[in-house]
Amino acid sequence: MHSLQFTAESSSDGMVERDFTVGGVPGVLWSPAPGADRAPLVLMGHGGGNHKKHPAMAGRARLLVTGCGFHVAVIDAPGHGDRPRTPHDEQEIAELYRARAAGEPEGPIVVRYNAHLAELAVPEWQATLDALQELPEIGADGRVGYFGINMGTAIGIPLVAIEPRITAAVFGQHWPDVLVEKARRITVPIEFDMQWDDEHIPREAALTLFDAFASKEKTLHANAGRHKELPRFEADSAVRFFARHLGRAVTPPA
Amino acid sequence: MHSLQFTAESSSDGMVERDFTVGGVPGVLWSPAPGADRAPLVLMGHGGGNHKKHPAMAGRARLLVTGCGFHVAVIDAPGHGDRPRTPHDEQEIAELYRARAAGEPEGPIVVRYNAHLAELAVPEWQATLDALQELPEIGADGRVGYFGINMGTAIGIPLVAIEPRITAAVFGQHWPDVLVEKARRITVPIEFDMQWDDEHIPREAALTLFDAFASKEKTLHANAGRHKELPRFEADSAVRFFARHLGRAVTPPA
Repeated sequence: MHSLQFTAESSSDGMVERDFTVGGVPGVLWSPAPGADRAPLVLMGHGGGNHKKHPAMAGRARLLVTGCGFHVAVIDAPGHGDRPRTPHDEQEIAELYRARAAGEPEGPIVVRYNAHLAELAVPEWQATLDALQELPEIGADGRVGYFGINMGTAIGIPLVAIEPRITAAVFGQHWPDVLVEKARRITVPIEFDMQWDDEHIPREAALTLFDAFASKEKTLHANAGRHKELPRFEADSAVRFFARHLGRAVTPPA
Repeated sequence: MHSLQFTAESSSDGMVERDFTVGGVPGVLWSPAPGADRAPLVLMGHGGGNHKKHPAMAGRARLLVTGCGFHVAVIDAPGHGDRPRTPHDEQEIAELYRARAAGEPEGPIVVRYNAHLAELAVPEWQATLDALQELPEIGADGRVGYFGINMGTAIGIPLVAIEPRITAAVFGQHWPDVLVEKARRITVPIEFDMQWDDEHIPREAALTLFDAFASKEKTLHANAGRHKELPRFEADSAVRFFARHLGRAVTPPA
């Protein structure tokens, strides 16, 4: 088992940020101020082309840490953030840009590339979770959630499908193709975001993926707007979802 | 214009409850403690077979009044609550019970009967709103929302379609048949609830009605479960929706 190495630490406004690596994979752990009780952990998957400290990640982490007292961890996906790109990564990214420039649908390329990344990332997430649970402020029996949209869903659905430690998840905005079979094995509570006027993911495709989850408790949030227009209030909604299912009250900002 | 007559008043836990009539239609107005500043008003439509003080109405009112400082008004729909049933009401209700007992779809009867009730109820709501806006604690230029599910949507969509004073609405759980044309005239922000496994309203029918709203800001909340299983957290979500759009912060219960 790989152990967790902290490589940097800072803090601001009541949130501690610690960079770490597990088996060479770089991550970040955001936590409440030291001395707090053991608390639930939310794993967050970043979007395609982004990285572990993208403002969307840091912003959601702040809501979860300062609002609920949770720990939040993000790792760079393969080929993303501080990790090197392989020739295969470069080839797929070039193909994606070519399709975009040509006005061709990007779905088939994104689906294929994300499925490849998920195969690599799922065992990395499991090793990261093993190592995070060694920390006394998290612990091996604490509650764990997963929150990832777009590529974070392409990696998160296969992860949650095989990872019994994760007991609640927020997903959204992905094609169903390779994910439906795995979604059918997920029974934990789910919140799922889609954009009603998504120019990349057909409406029926999004509804098909939501429908596939075997979860008794699942909620679809569909908002008017295009792919990139997911409203900010959906992050607040995700925080309340995790507060309900991981067992903390939400404290609103002062 | 009919004026508003208060007929009873009580209060509990920081919420004042005043029964009223406007033009013979009985209603209830729930308000913050006297002396509060002028505040927005949420009109709530009750469900079929229920009445203005059904626990679902009183519970949602408490969230809106004590959480946001809003006023909340509900009136009995025609043939409901303290209002007499006509022979036509009795006939339609008997037909609904007959269809249920026979295992026939209730949709066609509910759609037809609710459309009839909406024709009567919309002018009653407009007269009620006129009279409520005469009250100094509400005022003629304050913000107004509408919140109604089931029959509350059958009455609310025609009302919001023609009533420019209502600037945000929560609807849900109704067939699209007679409502789609009116929904297409609605442009204010909408939150719309459906049940993903509704045994009465087909999934496609619910999605069709949501799709019809012309609103730039609209959100669909679809939850796993049958018709009567709309989760309680959707009431909390509606409160946050009105807080966003009518301009108040939500204060969580102590």
